[in-house]
Amino acid sequence: MPRIFEANEIPADEKEVRRDYFDRHSPRILCESTAKRGEKFRVKIVVGEEYQHPDEGDHYISFIQLWNRETFLAQVHFTPGMMGGKPGQVEVDFYLVPSVSMNLTALANCTKHGLWQSKQVDVKVIDGLEQ
Amino acid sequence: MPRIFEANEIPADEKEVRRDYFDRHSPRILCESTAKRGEKFRVKIVVGEEYQHPDEGDHYISFIQLWNRETFLAQVHFTPGMMGGKPGQVEVDFYLVPSVSMNLTALANCTKHGLWQSKQVDVKVIDGLEQ
Amino acid sequence: MPRIFEANEIPADEKEVRRDYFDRHSPRILCESTAKRGEKFRVKIVVGEEYQHPDEGDHYISFIQLWNRETFLAQVHFTPGMMGGKPGQVEVDFYLVPSVSMNLTALANCTKHGLWQSKQVDVKVIDGLEQ
Amino acid sequence: MPRIFEANEIPADEKEVRRDYFDRHSPRILCESTAKRGEKFRVKIVVGEEYQHPDEGDHYISFIQLWNRETFLAQVHFTPGMMGGKPGQVEVDFYLVPSVSMNLTALANCTKHGLWQSKQVDVKVIDGLEQ
Repeated sequence: MPRIFEANEIPADEKEVRRDYFDRHSPRILCESTAKRGEKFRVKIVVGEEYQHPDEGDHYISFIQLWNRETFLAQVHFTPGMMGGKPGQVEVDFYLVPSVSMNLTALANCTKHGLWQSKQVDVKVIDGLEQ
Repeated sequence: MPRIFEANEIPADEKEVRRDYFDRHSPRILCESTAKRGEKFRVKIVVGEEYQHPDEGDHYISFIQLWNRETFLAQVHFTPGMMGGKPGQVEVDFYLVPSVSMNLTALANCTKHGLWQSKQVDVKVIDGLEQ
Repeated sequence: MPRIFEANEIPADEKEVRRDYFDRHSPRILCESTAKRGEKFRVKIVVGEEYQHPDEGDHYISFIQLWNRETFLAQVHFTPGMMGGKPGQVEVDFYLVPSVSMNLTALANCTKHGLWQSKQVDVKVIDGLEQ
Repeated sequence: MPRIFEANEIPADEKEVRRDYFDRHSPRILCESTAKRGEKFRVKIVVGEEYQHPDEGDHYISFIQLWNRETFLAQVHFTPGMMGGKPGQVEVDFYLVPSVSMNLTALANCTKHGLWQSKQVDVKVIDGLEQ
């Protein structure tokens, strides 16, 4: 079963011991907390914060998905070697045009260590200022 | 969060009432229970058993994934209209060459009703007969 | 530029010399030449005929696409190792429900040697027999 | 056959008449012309320049691919509705770590009007300054 790993659910002590392991697999969502209704909005996803993930043929980040609640938005598939074949932090920027407030989640798949989920990120959608 | 819907986990009474809803979203894995090591092995996935899913621009099965335990194997992305724009059962056959016994799961994504998981299927991998 | 390699366009003498190279990269479409309107129709794609393609982390068939004329129908993404890490012929069966006659083409991508196109296959779509 | 449309190859007079048609389907690559070897490098792709493309269930940009010469790098699949269901310019930023100079091309697929190719973009890769 594709159990979804989520750093949040890991006991604190195990988390400390295997901190690099969790860090380098966890996708992070980086975006503004407020978006303007009907305007293009950037959602950056980066895998890893302090640590880097390998980029080898039998061990790489093969895809990243972006979800709004239970709705699938987009997915990027990577080829091994795109990060130069060396450890790095896989990154992609998606752009969407929101109409209502969102709760975003990213998933990243490691070909050796499975599917990892980001923290959820709330984005409030407001009307732009009239001028 | 992309909660994964799984028909198994739904209470029996709710399951009966919304039987068509669960049926038409659930991917089923159809394959032999035994595979020969090193030989090509077919894994068929069909979404729905008694019921059919719409194939409309705002409501269709957009992808199917195949997993072996926590390892991602393959994914097919569909275009709306591939089932003729009418209700049907989305289907795909993957082929893999196993070396050890597997526990397969399929996921199917409905653009309106989220991500659905199949029952898990065990496949025993044995050596072929020498002759 | 993603030049699309097509075995048809290669000069006969070069083709003979590098026959294994062309064969093992070329997707083949295998399906009936006639389909019934509104009924599910299987389109099998196999990469290679006499020769096999490697399945290694830096050298594998990473995706297969199916097109009807200029319309994209479906795409499957693979993970290296799915063919057991040994040379083999990547294979997938798509299922579609045609309404009018089709001209199908498949594309297969090798991570080292680029994008390869199948021969085009015409499928006549006829009405089923009434009973 | 998935003929690849390329605005460059269209006769000037036809191009003027159907200028909006070509513009709104053509992916553009936006990136620096020089990259530092071994450092992460952003490649932005935007579909359309003066015109916008619909985002409807039967007419949307379903995927974008990034290629370096004949090597496939990455692909993003979209769901209809991601641009709010209104005309817009689909956009994605890929990040890669180059080791040698590149010649990049993007492809974008419209579910109604086929596959479109960007202009090719040369990126020179140089060593960073030592300090």
